Amino acid sequence: MEHIKYMRLALKEAQKAKELDEVPIGAVIVLNGKVIAKAHNLREKNQSATAHAEVLAINKACKKLNSWRLNGCVLYVTLEPCTMCIGASILSRVDGIVYGAKDPKGGTLGSLYDISLIKGFNHYPWIISGICEDESSILLKTFFKNKRKNDME
Amino acid sequence: MEHIKYMRLALKEAQKAKELDEVPIGAVIVLNGKVIAKAHNLREKNQSATAHAEVLAINKACKKLNSWRLNGCVLYVTLEPCTMCIGASILSRVDGIVYGAKDPKGGTLGSLYDISLIKGFNHYPWIISGICEDESSILLKTFFKNKRKNDME
Repeated sequence: MEHIKYMRLALKEAQKAKELDEVPIGAVIVLNGKVIAKAHNLREKNQSATAHAEVLAINKACKKLNSWRLNGCVLYVTLEPCTMCIGASILSRVDGIVYGAKDPKGGTLGSLYDISLIKGFNHYPWIISGICEDESSILLKTFFKNKRKNDME
Repeated sequence: MEHIKYMRLALKEAQKAKELDEVPIGAVIVLNGKVIAKAHNLREKNQSATAHAEVLAINKACKKLNSWRLNGCVLYVTLEPCTMCIGASILSRVDGIVYGAKDPKGGTLGSLYDISLIKGFNHYPWIISGICEDESSILLKTFFKNKRKNDME
């Protein structure tokens, strides 16, 4: 139930991205039951290759805690993270990652490859997937469907 | 010769990191023979898990070009990039990556694993390694040796 509560907040962030015509992906970071960071994809608005929801949320959480170490934190994100975002999560030492929909094109927790199978990292967050999967998936599918429709008009 | 010239600038950045007591890693991004971004590791100073030299340089280059697309650019970095930084490089579409020393603990271009062997990315930068390898390696080894020495005193 708790995971659903926080994933709904991440979905609200994804909705904010959609309103900016960004690919709708959102993330929140929770520490001891408190949301300490919220962010959404801002790649187009910021014209920044690294402005994924997860990286922006990690940056905000580090700022909030004044620490690059996010031990004890859980990252909630609406879509399976990409290589950069999994790397950032490992580096930040978040305890766990909870994500919604699978990303067959760029997900690195089983889709494109499974980073948890690679040996040698000094930290492995626990992973839970499929929380609010349908809501996240529908949000993304509708976004891209409308994009294609607008492109054809 | 050109690679050495730009790697020497990246090494200068690494030196700046060292002076701040940061792990000495530096990066520069070059477009059409012009350096458009320089950065060094600032994890401790910024208390940010994502403040690796490569990510900071990519962010600066995106800002400079006002574009998340860094096509035509080459990233020079003194150490083999980690998962996050390789992910950021792929996302930014840099044409190529030139790096110095291998990183057996976190490098993802052959050391920990080789991301170029994973199928399905929509972009694969070309890779050149070993440029100014010794200079980078000595800088890092001396840094950690002094750290250990200070810790023991």
